[in-house]
Amino acid sequence: MSKVIDFQTDPSQYRHWRVEYDGPVARLYMDVDEKGGLFDGYELKLNSYDLGVDIELADVVQRMRFEHPEVKVVVMQSAKDKVFCAGANIRMLGGASHAHKVNFCKFTNETRNTFEAAEADSGQKYIAAVKGACAGGGYELALACNHIMLTNDSASSVALPEVPLLAVLPGTGGLTRVTDKRKVRRDRADVFCSIEEGVKGQRAKDWRLVDEVIANSRFDETVAVRAREFAAQSSKADGLVGIALTPLSRTFADDGSVAYSLVDVALDRDGRRATITLSGPDTDVPADMDAFQAQGAEAYMLRLARELDDAILHLRLNERELGLVAFCTQGDPEALIAHEKLLLDNADHWLANEVLKYWKRVLKRVDMTSRSLVALIEHGSCFAGVLAELLWSVDRSYMMMEEFEGDNRHMAAVTLSDSNFGTYPMGNDLTRLQTRFLGEPNHVEKLKSSVGTPLEAEAAEELGLVTYAYDDIDWEDEVRLFMEERASFSPDAMTGMEANLRFAGPETMETRIFGRLTAWQNWIFQRPNAVGAEGALQRYGSGQRGEYNMERV
Amino acid sequence: MSKVIDFQTDPSQYRHWRVEYDGPVARLYMDVDEKGGLFDGYELKLNSYDLGVDIELADVVQRMRFEHPEVKVVVMQSAKDKVFCAGANIRMLGGASHAHKVNFCKFTNETRNTFEAAEADSGQKYIAAVKGACAGGGYELALACNHIMLTNDSASSVALPEVPLLAVLPGTGGLTRVTDKRKVRRDRADVFCSIEEGVKGQRAKDWRLVDEVIANSRFDETVAVRAREFAAQSSKADGLVGIALTPLSRTFADDGSVAYSLVDVALDRDGRRATITLSGPDTDVPADMDAFQAQGAEAYMLRLARELDDAILHLRLNERELGLVAFCTQGDPEALIAHEKLLLDNADHWLANEVLKYWKRVLKRVDMTSRSLVALIEHGSCFAGVLAELLWSVDRSYMMMEEFEGDNRHMAAVTLSDSNFGTYPMGNDLTRLQTRFLGEPNHVEKLKSSVGTPLEAEAAEELGLVTYAYDDIDWEDEVRLFMEERASFSPDAMTGMEANLRFAGPETMETRIFGRLTAWQNWIFQRPNAVGAEGALQRYGSGQRGEYNMERV
Repeated sequence: MSKVIDFQTDPSQYRHWRVEYDGPVARLYMDVDEKGGLFDGYELKLNSYDLGVDIELADVVQRMRFEHPEVKVVVMQSAKDKVFCAGANIRMLGGASHAHKVNFCKFTNETRNTFEAAEADSGQKYIAAVKGACAGGGYELALACNHIMLTNDSASSVALPEVPLLAVLPGTGGLTRVTDKRKVRRDRADVFCSIEEGVKGQRAKDWRLVDEVIANSRFDETVAVRAREFAAQSSKADGLVGIALTPLSRTFADDGSVAYSLVDVALDRDGRRATITLSGPDTDVPADMDAFQAQGAEAYMLRLARELDDAILHLRLNERELGLVAFCTQGDPEALIAHEKLLLDNADHWLANEVLKYWKRVLKRVDMTSRSLVALIEHGSCFAGVLAELLWSVDRSYMMMEEFEGDNRHMAAVTLSDSNFGTYPMGNDLTRLQTRFLGEPNHVEKLKSSVGTPLEAEAAEELGLVTYAYDDIDWEDEVRLFMEERASFSPDAMTGMEANLRFAGPETMETRIFGRLTAWQNWIFQRPNAVGAEGALQRYGSGQRGEYNMERV
Repeated sequence: MSKVIDFQTDPSQYRHWRVEYDGPVARLYMDVDEKGGLFDGYELKLNSYDLGVDIELADVVQRMRFEHPEVKVVVMQSAKDKVFCAGANIRMLGGASHAHKVNFCKFTNETRNTFEAAEADSGQKYIAAVKGACAGGGYELALACNHIMLTNDSASSVALPEVPLLAVLPGTGGLTRVTDKRKVRRDRADVFCSIEEGVKGQRAKDWRLVDEVIANSRFDETVAVRAREFAAQSSKADGLVGIALTPLSRTFADDGSVAYSLVDVALDRDGRRATITLSGPDTDVPADMDAFQAQGAEAYMLRLARELDDAILHLRLNERELGLVAFCTQGDPEALIAHEKLLLDNADHWLANEVLKYWKRVLKRVDMTSRSLVALIEHGSCFAGVLAELLWSVDRSYMMMEEFEGDNRHMAAVTLSDSNFGTYPMGNDLTRLQTRFLGEPNHVEKLKSSVGTPLEAEAAEELGLVTYAYDDIDWEDEVRLFMEERASFSPDAMTGMEANLRFAGPETMETRIFGRLTAWQNWIFQRPNAVGAEGALQRYGSGQRGEYNMERV
């Protein structure tokens, strides 16, 4: 699996999904093309999915927010007979490298989370209308919806057969959503996760696995009624008109570097690192949200988010030997703050809200990126407002202090904006500043008085906003030593360390999925009982069950 | 590593620890015997530890609660020059099986947690007086103490060198306590965990890694002062006199079965399961707490807890191929409730408090046991009060319904007591009933009206207290089928599934340690970068660093 995976797509290219729009209700049909796998060696039978199917789904969800703000309810259903979705394709999983499996699960988890975010952040509710078998990752798709309707016939059931069938976990949020979202009694959850054939009919409702069980003859009608009811209850405004998410401007160089309009990704493969440089505004602040909307996907704040999002995903899946990502910025911090301010001042405008909430998701994607992350706050940089968040998303930061010889860019500074105090919460539901100063909550309050002031190195260090500040004499050596040191560490230990250090404080369903559930799944994805030659994943479909070492750990 | 590990010890057998008692202050000296390793092949240099050292430590902490209730402050220190503790022995880890490593870490984690529980539950505070190197598991010992004092000299530092040195995590709570207990700023935590040599002096205080840094010349004196101050602040009563934790009555049979006075452990190695049968009271209820104290370790409620605790630990470490543990009880539920009631009615009596808090720990140990757990509620059983907790600690339960032919024991029933509503919280700080009915909090309230009523199968099932109830016709087949099914599943998938399903609801530092941190550590413990032939753990001490696959997952 070495071909470059592209996260950019659009409806004209979809092979697996289609959407029918009907005012406030959209019908999202899963209709996976068996021959449309991202890689060779497997067929996507029974609406099973691989990363390619999920890339399209992520695109659907994103466009629903920006291109179809008139939609208040998305009804997810299958276009195939007798099967809703059979989950992740097992042959694909059996053939995938450990790193691909892990990154595949992370991306699908992020996409599932966007279903829930769509309702919480934008009043756009996902409901699952389940006819036919809904198993494994298929049920996890339904679990990510906020309302599950199941038809009552002998062929329709919900199931998590991973454990008995494949010796792995329902790892795309399944176990966590069963216990923490659906709040299924744990002994029933234990039974449910042990039954290959799943649970159907009234029992599925009694066990809280679905919200409604409906006679087959009344199913379609009831789904339509429910969709209209939910649409009527939605907090979303009526009659909004979307903007087009036009293709990104993007060029790949032979050395692997990527140039977007505002984002530059430079690779140092020998040093195993990438540098992502984000540019400050290249346009004036739109006069108002009408002007912003007229710019559409070209508007600076939206364009920057889209480009950064794509760059992160590209590095995650396609550049797996790069252990470190350095974030740099260059531009006018005041201009950046002004662009952001238009959105903050109009947060009740649907598009301003969507752009801010998209930044929330992109910054979470950075938090969840399993590479060592560092910010380099150089002269000429614009770590202000939303981009200042990067300073507390990364593992550590280095800041230029005082003048550097021959460098006439403006002095490095950090500029806080109101957004740093609540606009972009992390997965743990705290702001990055709250998480950073968990032991000194009063300090976060104190920082509010610095909003708008460019804080140069000494002040930024004193206020705890950066890790280190170095002058011209030490800067280069210190940054180099750090990068060399980091490149010498075991990537696995880094992954585990960062997964534990980045999310102090409360846990949420989201952090549990990425922490507890994912960690156990990754462990199982290393174990011979699942992935060995006689393991269940390899033997799947052969008629033989996995051969297990029976020792418990 | 196949010799039987015995968790029973007493001060006369200690090789690694000694305690000096001085009224309300106890001095706990770590003085590990290099030649005293539990297994061959390594020397416990520099106060490094293996499971044997930790078994003694757990015994110290337990006896401090029961035998030395006069102690209000325990000062943990090293009896060796220049080193506080070097952490878990690396050669031991390098030579240990995956299952031993995982179980070793679990037990040490449970023991660290008892330091914190001693203050929270009993007003007995642990402080760490650190002179010399305090590294890895050594610093994790200090982190488990509620006050860390560091001497200010060039040889004394705190460090978590696991990541740079060994390519594994500080997995005995280290990362979690750094972020969530000490609330260290995450970029500083990142730096700290990357520095082999650690942090010393004022910086350790500034970074919140220790509570006090004290000049070497005033260190001993300041520690003594602080110990007296904390003793004066303790909530613990003065002048309490303890009871002796006399040796358990225990017989091992050739087939591996173990017979205690109240606990019977029967093994079915072919079926890969153990049955633990707990007996109801074999004595009358003591007249009052004076009478209870006069019985000492022979008192039913304490004896049962000690025997169950030992049985669980024995199975965990010594019977690793048994995938399922069935809990049975036999005895008079009313008598059991009466024994428990004496403690509940006298919860402000120090010994009643200690016994109840010990049950809290034992039940948590059951929750954390990585085997499939089932309760069989047979006729003649006494799942009442504290033993009813087992019904919601296990993964599922089966209950006999109606009369069974030829069985004249009393009808199977579940009897709730007040203790089921708060006395024995789980690691997530909820009761087992709250966790079980997370989706129906009102139901827990409703259950209070059933306190004291023996609930036979139909009622118990209706109230959601048991998973299944079967009559004479179905019982044997259903139980057998479940056990056979369970024995056929991959143990790894069971471990991962149970770790996710058992702890719904809020996360605490404790659940994060056993969930997130442990899961990532176990993953790393499977990865070649750590445990492969060229991995860091294997190469430790060879002068060569580990050879790493640099792919990030």
